[in-house]
Amino acid sequence: MAKDVTTIPYKIYLTEDEMPKNWYNVRADMTKKPAPLLNPGTLQPMTAEELEGVFCKELVEQELDDTTPFIEIPQEIRDFYRMYRPSPLVRAYCLEEKLDTPAKIYYKFEGNNTSGSHKLNSAIAQAYYAKKQGLKGVTTETGAGQWGTALSMACAYFGLDLKVFMVKVSYEQKPFRREVMRTYGASVTPSPSLETNIGRAINEKFPGTTGSLGCAISEAVEVATSTEGYRYVLGSVLAQVLLHQSVIGLETKAALDKYGITPDIIIGCAGGGSNLGGLIAPFAGEMLRGEKDYKIIAVEPASCPSLTRGKYVYDFCDTGMVCPLAKMYTLGSGFIPSANHAGGLRFHGMSSIVSELYDQGYIDAVSYEQTEVFEAAEMFARCEGILPAPESSHAIKCALDEALKCKETGEEKTIVFGLTGTGYFDLKAYEQFNDGKMTDYIPTDEEIAAGLAGVPQFPGNEI
Amino acid sequence: MAKDVTTIPYKIYLTEDEMPKNWYNVRADMTKKPAPLLNPGTLQPMTAEELEGVFCKELVEQELDDTTPFIEIPQEIRDFYRMYRPSPLVRAYCLEEKLDTPAKIYYKFEGNNTSGSHKLNSAIAQAYYAKKQGLKGVTTETGAGQWGTALSMACAYFGLDLKVFMVKVSYEQKPFRREVMRTYGASVTPSPSLETNIGRAINEKFPGTTGSLGCAISEAVEVATSTEGYRYVLGSVLAQVLLHQSVIGLETKAALDKYGITPDIIIGCAGGGSNLGGLIAPFAGEMLRGEKDYKIIAVEPASCPSLTRGKYVYDFCDTGMVCPLAKMYTLGSGFIPSANHAGGLRFHGMSSIVSELYDQGYIDAVSYEQTEVFEAAEMFARCEGILPAPESSHAIKCALDEALKCKETGEEKTIVFGLTGTGYFDLKAYEQFNDGKMTDYIPTDEEIAAGLAGVPQFPGNEI
Repeated sequence: MAKDVTTIPYKIYLTEDEMPKNWYNVRADMTKKPAPLLNPGTLQPMTAEELEGVFCKELVEQELDDTTPFIEIPQEIRDFYRMYRPSPLVRAYCLEEKLDTPAKIYYKFEGNNTSGSHKLNSAIAQAYYAKKQGLKGVTTETGAGQWGTALSMACAYFGLDLKVFMVKVSYEQKPFRREVMRTYGASVTPSPSLETNIGRAINEKFPGTTGSLGCAISEAVEVATSTEGYRYVLGSVLAQVLLHQSVIGLETKAALDKYGITPDIIIGCAGGGSNLGGLIAPFAGEMLRGEKDYKIIAVEPASCPSLTRGKYVYDFCDTGMVCPLAKMYTLGSGFIPSANHAGGLRFHGMSSIVSELYDQGYIDAVSYEQTEVFEAAEMFARCEGILPAPESSHAIKCALDEALKCKETGEEKTIVFGLTGTGYFDLKAYEQFNDGKMTDYIPTDEEIAAGLAGVPQFPGNEI
Repeated sequence: MAKDVTTIPYKIYLTEDEMPKNWYNVRADMTKKPAPLLNPGTLQPMTAEELEGVFCKELVEQELDDTTPFIEIPQEIRDFYRMYRPSPLVRAYCLEEKLDTPAKIYYKFEGNNTSGSHKLNSAIAQAYYAKKQGLKGVTTETGAGQWGTALSMACAYFGLDLKVFMVKVSYEQKPFRREVMRTYGASVTPSPSLETNIGRAINEKFPGTTGSLGCAISEAVEVATSTEGYRYVLGSVLAQVLLHQSVIGLETKAALDKYGITPDIIIGCAGGGSNLGGLIAPFAGEMLRGEKDYKIIAVEPASCPSLTRGKYVYDFCDTGMVCPLAKMYTLGSGFIPSANHAGGLRFHGMSSIVSELYDQGYIDAVSYEQTEVFEAAEMFARCEGILPAPESSHAIKCALDEALKCKETGEEKTIVFGLTGTGYFDLKAYEQFNDGKMTDYIPTDEEIAAGLAGVPQFPGNEI
């Protein structure tokens, strides 16, 4: 029997009573706050009024509030959380044994819900506030499909209409994701479509285009702002999303505290930053308040390395440039990552909160190439049973490396990583890996520079 | 907030200490035992020696043991169970509210593991005994792919080779299932193949055939019996499988007991009987011992109605007729159900244990058509969040009907049903439903009679 197994279970579950009743807003504990969103026309901070034309009112309040540390989770959202949360904090006994490491490895598993990822934590919150505001429906975009699936579940629960613009290439290549959304009642439109001005313009300019996330965002925003009773919602990057995702970190910390465990290293994959920002929030808060010290590692794909090779400047959040400017580590909104299956990690920029914490030195960052990430995924699947999402597997790879370092040094470090989701809809990528046909690509310095050339130039925002 | 929510959580989890340490063998409490397997040549009961040529030694012991009520779950299997069990017993608060029923509805959810179903409970046990016997590997067949996936996970864990014969039409139409198995290290061969005598003969006789479960079984058995260090394993129907699956019922009963809940109605979908037999085992035991009374309902598809329209006779378990004869409710091993997406419910016969309990009146049976089952699935998904497997959705449909009866009568019955798995790999069927293109088919009396004409004729086994 594995070490510790008599005192620490395989899976630590909080009781439903022990689940968080508040989200934690890490910005409240930051002395130097993340920079505000800017109006791209005036270069002035976006006002609540401006944001409320696009987003739900209470979500705008949350977006702009960088001083309130705890924000109550409404009962209706807590009721829904109870349907699939608390998620387990799993002790990776089998992985430890396989690696023969003195390290103790835990992972917070967010994949046990039909969306297959942590995205549902924010989707249900955003749907709730939309319903509370009396809206008829919301619009969004989806690439890989996790966010669209999560939001379709949330909208079905609250009886809201949902219109999803799905990047055309995904719409065609991922019909199963599309059908999950339809089963939950969402209307799914391939983007670029002929239903919006932007979509028609892009179809005319680039006949036969298979679309992009940037274009899908633009279409979703256009429909939201031009349709009575609709608003637009977004699944990552924004401060409100990280606030909702703090439920991951709060549960993780409560589960660790329940067994008197203090982690040394906390690891999360980082695309737009929603999962990482949520997982680390309470731990980063302790660091910011000078109470504790942890090593926090953000893991990104070498093909889309915003933290490790990007610049910390104001940039557009979307290629269509319809959204506010955000200050973030970015590769430029025109940067096109090479074909890479970690669809959720292909965003050119990083949440302003994560970017600022990284800039202040609270977070380290590493990047990995795709093939080594899938090797880690395969090993993990075979000994821990769970088939991980490619995104999550970046965190696995980093956790393996840290555990192997412990094996060399003999240190009994405690490692916690976020297992954000499952790979059931990513089997095309696994097939490529199984067939030995996966390739890696690291962008050249010239490609990075070309992407960054698209960053808006204004005083104080020079590359 | 929903009724009872302050006293009964959304999800009842046993602690790992409370998990079953023994499987329960319901045959021990049956006065009239299920009929033994027969050698199709001699029509005599199969001996241990005969069975050990095909199956693992300790599994044969379990197959033949109809007197020992409790059989210890080896520590190694309990360690694996702790990686994905206990599964939650969920109170369907949202469904109750949606139906506005006084009934209290619970479901035991077995889908929270990578195989997506309850199949893993027996797969890990069978892999363990194979490993313990010093075997090099095992063979099996898979149709829809749940069993093959579960077994590939189990074999990866114990370091056993696995050769899966996958019905060719599924191999081609369900590449994702195939890739999950390959990711876990299994070798997956489309059946009929050119690697076996039976496969070559069938390919010659029926060029271009897309295969059948019966043919895949025959190929798997041929390879197992002709390869040094290999045995064949099977995921349903057999008594040993129902024994392992009793962990579902034991956990369900322990969870109910923990909160002082006594169910009135227990519902499970029924294909070969592994899930139903496991779920109801301890409850049927109480009935057999005269301690309690429950209404137990087996739910089958109208397209493959072995309990409701079949005959209780000895029949072949496979279309290739290489396996022992089993006494069971059957439609005849040549019965071909119409296209029906509930792949796991397409077996022509029913476990001998379930058949005998049904024959003795301990179990009721109902059948539903496909479209009404998917309607129930969609409703369930939208309010309870989980996207159910088509198989599981048969139980959902029956639970809905029973809950609506309570609404009419005002009775506050407690309903428990088995939610055996998730539908992530069944989205082709959901797509058909979403597009309004799903059709139903009920076999005619003539078709049933034609299937039954293939039942072996010998004294006492007349149709």
